[in-house]
Order: sequence, then structure tokens, then C-alpha cells
Amino acid sequence: MEFERLINPKTYALIGATNNPLSGAYRFLQGQIVNKFRGKIYPINPKHSEILGIKTYPDIRDIPETEIDYVLIAVPAEQVPTEIRKCIEKNVKFAVIFSSGFSEIGKTHLEEEIKQIAKGKLRILGPNCIGVYSPEVRLGYFIDQPITSAEGDVAFISQSGGITRKFIWTSYSGFPIRATVSSGNTIDISISELLAYFAQDPKTQLIAAYLEFVKGGPNFFKQLRSITPKKPVVILKCGRTPKGKIAAQSHTGAIAGSYDVFAAMVKQAGGIIVETFEELTDVMIGLKCLKGSLPLGHNVAIINTGGGIAVEITDTCEANGFTVSNLEASTQEKLEQLLPSVNVIVKNPIDLGAAGFNPKVFGQAVQILSQDPHIDAILIVHEIERFQDLNNRFEVSDIGEIYADIMQKNRNPKKPIISILPRAWEMVDHFITYQNYSNDLLNVGIPAYPTAFRALKMLAHLIRYERFLHK
Amino acid sequence: MEFERLINPKTYALIGATNNPLSGAYRFLQGQIVNKFRGKIYPINPKHSEILGIKTYPDIRDIPETEIDYVLIAVPAEQVPTEIRKCIEKNVKFAVIFSSGFSEIGKTHLEEEIKQIAKGKLRILGPNCIGVYSPEVRLGYFIDQPITSAEGDVAFISQSGGITRKFIWTSYSGFPIRATVSSGNTIDISISELLAYFAQDPKTQLIAAYLEFVKGGPNFFKQLRSITPKKPVVILKCGRTPKGKIAAQSHTGAIAGSYDVFAAMVKQAGGIIVETFEELTDVMIGLKCLKGSLPLGHNVAIINTGGGIAVEITDTCEANGFTVSNLEASTQEKLEQLLPSVNVIVKNPIDLGAAGFNPKVFGQAVQILSQDPHIDAILIVHEIERFQDLNNRFEVSDIGEIYADIMQKNRNPKKPIISILPRAWEMVDHFITYQNYSNDLLNVGIPAYPTAFRALKMLAHLIRYERFLHK
Repeated sequence: MEFERLINPKTYALIGATNNPLSGAYRFLQGQIVNKFRGKIYPINPKHSEILGIKTYPDIRDIPETEIDYVLIAVPAEQVPTEIRKCIEKNVKFAVIFSSGFSEIGKTHLEEEIKQIAKGKLRILGPNCIGVYSPEVRLGYFIDQPITSAEGDVAFISQSGGITRKFIWTSYSGFPIRATVSSGNTIDISISELLAYFAQDPKTQLIAAYLEFVKGGPNFFKQLRSITPKKPVVILKCGRTPKGKIAAQSHTGAIAGSYDVFAAMVKQAGGIIVETFEELTDVMIGLKCLKGSLPLGHNVAIINTGGGIAVEITDTCEANGFTVSNLEASTQEKLEQLLPSVNVIVKNPIDLGAAGFNPKVFGQAVQILSQDPHIDAILIVHEIERFQDLNNRFEVSDIGEIYADIMQKNRNPKKPIISILPRAWEMVDHFITYQNYSNDLLNVGIPAYPTAFRALKMLAHLIRYERFLHK
Repeated sequence: MEFERLINPKTYALIGATNNPLSGAYRFLQGQIVNKFRGKIYPINPKHSEILGIKTYPDIRDIPETEIDYVLIAVPAEQVPTEIRKCIEKNVKFAVIFSSGFSEIGKTHLEEEIKQIAKGKLRILGPNCIGVYSPEVRLGYFIDQPITSAEGDVAFISQSGGITRKFIWTSYSGFPIRATVSSGNTIDISISELLAYFAQDPKTQLIAAYLEFVKGGPNFFKQLRSITPKKPVVILKCGRTPKGKIAAQSHTGAIAGSYDVFAAMVKQAGGIIVETFEELTDVMIGLKCLKGSLPLGHNVAIINTGGGIAVEITDTCEANGFTVSNLEASTQEKLEQLLPSVNVIVKNPIDLGAAGFNPKVFGQAVQILSQDPHIDAILIVHEIERFQDLNNRFEVSDIGEIYADIMQKNRNPKKPIISILPRAWEMVDHFITYQNYSNDLLNVGIPAYPTAFRALKMLAHLIRYERFLHK
């Protein structure tokens, strides 16, 4: 496939490499060194023979390679056309333009000039972008974001470099990256083409995108429609409001149409459309964990261990299109047999009281609920602040791991479990306990969210997607 | 005031003290020992002469005190009436009933019996509650939640013990506690009375409440109306939806009326009504920082340092009743003078680009915006993941402190600044950097939120309150 050498290049040149440690170009080069990029690196700068210990060439045409996969261009916008011409002479496959100062500040003519020069000879990513991040070949971005996680199966296509970097940081919480592509003003290589690449890439299972505008709408939606039956595609489109549109125009030169029409068409094509970055990453974690065991209905059971939080969660469910269902009589009987008669509530929301602090009892309650045909999904609630105390009481080092293990053994694989972990952020110990437990849960396919609202918003998206698949 | 000895008792007795380390009573006693409660502690248990190293009495009437302020009762529900009679004989002022098993499981007659016994002789908090937490006398709850923070000025009244404990944990992030009172089924001492106490308490400045039901509505709203011009009152009322109401009934025996009517009356009385715990604590942090400098309008300026996040935040503002205002011509000119001409956007949302990584430039931009009469509040955006890198670049240990300091020097004290700190939670380093920076900001009166949505929801509540004060 054409873009293989863009996503997984074997040669990487950097036009505009400098030894100024504050410059983006320098920090890019540092990034590739720290990442131990698997291919060859060629810094280009006529004034230096070496930068960061790497032999540096005065001109891209001087590089001793017959063709070059990936050239990052980091020179002032006005000099970009000249460099593109040199790249064509050198038989470069992909020019990735990091430089900004194009249509986002009104200089559309510069973009037109570049497009004319490159047409049919060279493909361009950007300008005003940070290009490709690909753990497979250890191609990354700046030094402050080294590649630290394993290769994953999530592809991200983005018109914002900043959002791309945030996506990578957030991916560590449960959806490892196949590759990210920042396309900035997106004058040549299009969102549709990138979608098509990741659609056919066997290593990609989930696709997400941050968009400010899409050129060639019909092709985009056709592409999207062909992918979604096989791979979920989640889209965050900003510039939704009139002022947001103006902001997007200053950011990437975006000229966008009606958001409502766009969103409706994405949904029709089976895409998942979200409104904030948080929602985007919440859905990614949900898909990663729950794809394959998604429900079609909105009936939930809530299990917690004591208190007012279940009342709030019940309200949040009911106010957001979910039903805290009545349980089957047999479910209720089984719960009554399992639990002591005081301090527990065997109606949904189920309050296990202090008995729930025993992971075995918690696991058995999950098992009983998993059999109830009225329940589509189970929301388990833990207050993470109590885990330290439980570790002491049960004399274990990580009670969370025990809970996760028991849940895995007791669950119905077809019935999703979602964890709600309200958290008090101010204590490092609690943060670490939260991280450990949510990782334990992720390992058994249970996504965790700090609020019911976020969990339900995610679940609503996934149910809509599952219904699309069943149409 | 009558409740002084409830909130700041000098003597504390625990009926039902045991040496079973898993019991609540034991963990309560451990809590008081660890906290070094400032008064005298008397465990009561006929079978032991000593528990946790403290001399234990067989009966409350055997204690060598002529009167006792605060008695926590932790015996099975059926035994509570007998213990209440003994308390009356002993001239106890306040009985706090920890035991559950009353109206929340249908045993309303037991509550009626206790009320009859106590009437005019003894005041009761609860049952099904965890009572009072008061840093002033170092009276706390269980061992797993020792009093670690300084005395504060926030009072919390709650019908859920679990939510009370969460409120305390969350308070460490910026709104230290004066006292919390968990009143559970609330059969005697009422929410209105507790409100009245904290209204007159000179050490209380902000009041929050978690409610499932309110008895004596007219008195409650009258009380509320009299407090709100002096002290903000923030109310989270759960059991909003029909299923939530049922859940509340199982939790505290609550029988609640229409939520919409309740919410409308709270607003009319100048109270702030919220729908989730997260929103409650977000508002508390906002009030703590911004009370006294609240705007009446919804015009905001957004300043960030690069990228797509400003587009998302602009959308979120516009979709939630805020306006990302056009700047005064003079503001725009001053910004143009301050900033380089490339890679920055001097329209609102303002993108300082790489120049914003210099705290001085950031501070000057804040100063310029602070003078713009079209701007009611300033939203500053930082991506916390970049701070480590900035520390390295500027060779400082905590760039956040420098930003906070500069903001304080450059701000208009009448114009609130709110920080939006999107975060990638999965890394401990980022968490600690986030905590440090948000604390630095709190110290100069700038509240920080991880999403624009939460910041704006908070700000909308505070603007409504400010308008109420100006009516």
C-alpha cells in the first residue's frame, strides 16, 4: 500500500535541522535518537557537518540514498517550495511539512504553490503538522514524548499536533497505539486516504480522528461507511460552533460546513461522533475492552458497597437514557441467600454493604447478576480510597488484583462490566492505587471511569455502534 | 449555640465499643486515638475493662462525668431505644446513632419509639449516620481517614456517610473543612437546624449539603434564604429521578417530593444546586478561590500555547452559554506588540504559540486581557505534560510556581482567572506535576479544572449566585 513507507519509513531526513536546543527541529531529532528510530536518519543543514552526533548534509540532494521515504521539513514557510523541488529531484516519497505560516494565517497562495510543484511527483503531509508516530519503526515526535509503550492497534488521524500528542499520552491508560498521523492543514494527503490506509492495515483494529474540516465530503463518508462494519471509527470534530469555526480557521485554515449535518452523516455511516477529547479517549478505552461483548439494550445493574453514591449513579443512569432495571425474582432470591440480612440492599442498585468488601462476595454477586436476562451491562462501583484499608484488613498487597481476578472468573463473557471509580485526586497514594486497580481491570477487559456520567456516555456510543452492526 | 457541643464536643463516649478490628465501632475508636481527639474518650462495653488501651465502662451511666456531650451508639437497632434511655439518665446532650436497620429497611416504628423517648430530653443525630468530623477538636471518623489537613471554613451537611467521607477526601484539593455532619435518616436534628448553626458560626464561610430528602420544607427554604446573602450554600440533592428516589428510600428511608420543584425553590432562595458530586466539589473549589471577584457576565477570553485544544474549548464555551468575545482593538494591538508575528493568534481564543512557554510573556498577556472591558473572566490553558520539559528548558524545579506567581502579579483582582489543565492521568510524574501546579494556582486564588466543561459549569453557577447577590 502506498502509505506503508509514510507510516513505517526506513529513511528519515530532516530539512532545517539545527543545533538550537529550543527549536522544534532540534527536539524532533532528539526524539528520534532517544527512540532509536529503526531506519537511517539524515539531518540537513548547509552550515553544520554534524548535529547531535549525526553526520549532517548541506542539501537533501547530497544524501547517499537513491530514494528517501520520509522528509520532515522545518524551515520558514517561504522556503518550503524550494525544498519541495529539491525533494522531488531526490526522489523523496513523502514530505512532511512541520513549518506553519500557511492558510492558517491567510497565506493560501503558498499552499497552492506547493501543491502545484508536488502534483504527481511527491506526496505531502501537512503543512503545520507534526507527522507520523509509529512504534513499529520507533518513529516518534519530540524528545519530551519518547515511545515508551508497546505497539498497539489504535490508529489516530489528526489535524492538530497538540491533540495528537495528548492522544498518545492518554493512550497509556489502555489503548496502545499502532500509529498516529498529524496532517495539519491537510493540503494533499487527505483524511479519506489515511482512513483507507488504516482500514486495510491488518495491525489496526480501532481508528480515531480529530478533525477541523474535511475536503471531499462524499468520498470521506463513502470511505467511512466501508470501514465501520469492520473497524470502529471514532471522530472528534471541533469547530462545531460559529466561534469554534473561526478558531479552527486560525488553527488549520479550516473552512467547515454545518456541524450538525456532518455529525448526522458520520452517524449514518456507522461512525461514532464525540464532542470532547475526554469523550474520545473514554470511548477508545471502552472499545478496547468491550468490543465483541457489546449489549444492544440500556438496562443496567449497579453494585456498590454502601451509600449515597449509588443514589447519585441511579439518577445519572435514569437521566441519561439508561434504566436501572428491576431484577428477576430468582436473581433477587440468590442475592438474598448470598448476603447477610442487615445493611444490604438486594434491589437494583444493589448495595452489598460491608459484605462487598469481601472480594468473593462481590464476585458472586457479579455472577448472579450476569445471569439475569433483564440486565444488559453491570456497573461495579468501588471507592478507591478504601482500598488501602482493605489491603490492611485482608493482609494483601493489592486487593484490586483480587477483585479483577474474581470478576474475570465470575463474569458472563457476553455481558459487559464497567467500573465506576470515583476518586479523590489529591493524594498520590490514592492515585497510584487507582492506576493499579484500573490496570488490573483493563487486563480482564473492564474499563474504569471516574464518574457514572462518563461511563454511560461511553456505553451509549458503543450500544449505538453495536446496533449499527446488527442492522 | 445549642449545637456547639455537638460539633466541638469535650467528651466522647462510644456505646458498642468492641475489640473486633473489622467492626465499625473499633475503627471509629482507632480514628479518635490516631487523631488525638482533644476531649475525653469513654468506650462502653460490659464485657471489657479496656479497649485499645482505653479504660472501658460497662454502662454509659458508670462514666465519671456529670454530663456527656457526644455519644456514638453502635449497637444493633433493636437495642438502641434502651441505650437512649440510659443516655437520658446520664444527662447526655447528643446521641449520634451509627447503627442502621431503621426506616431504610422499613422499620420506621423503631425510629418513632426513639423519637418519643428522646423528645425534650436529648437530641439525636441519625440514625444510620457517621456523625461529626471537626478538625477544631480533632474529632474524626474511621482510622482510614485521619484528620491531616488544617482547619478550614467549609461546612458540609450530609445524609450519606459515604458521600461525607468522599467530601473530606476531596477537600484536600482546595477547600479545607470547618466540620462535616452526617445525619443519615435525620429523625431529630434537622438539616434546617444544622444550616442555622453553620450560618451563625463565625468560622464557617461556605456551606455544602448532600440531601436525599428534607422534612419541614418551608422552614428549610426560609433558613436557606436567610443564609445565602451572607454565605453561599451549595446543594447536591439525589433521588432526582423516579428510580433514584427508590434508591434513596432504601438508603436513608427518604420520601422525597418533586426534584424540579425543590431545585427551583433552592435557586429562588439563592442556593446553588448541582447534580453530581464532582460538580459539587468543583463549585466548592471555585467559591473558595473566586468569592469576592465574581463576574456578572459570560464573556471569556481563552489563552493557550498552541493548538487544537483551544478550538475544542471555544466550542465548549459557546455550546454552554459563554461567549468567546471579540477583543477591544487596543487589546489586540497590545498583544501584537507583545508577541512575535509567526505562530501566534492574537484573536480570542489567543494562541501564544511557543512564546507562551515563557512565563513572562504569558503573564503579560494575562495583564493585557485583564484590562479589556469586554472580558468577564480569563481561561488559561496549560498542557501539564509539557511542564517537565519546560522545567528542563528553563532550568527550574517548578515552572508552575513561576507561572502562578506571575499571574498573581499581573492580574486584575476583580477579574477571575480559571485554569484549564487537561491531563493525561496515566503517569505518576504528570499527576504530581499537576498537583503541584494546581496547588500553586490555588495559593494565588486560581482554581484549576481538567476540562473546560467542568470549569464552565462551575463558573455558570458562580455567576448566577453573584447575580442573586446583586438583585
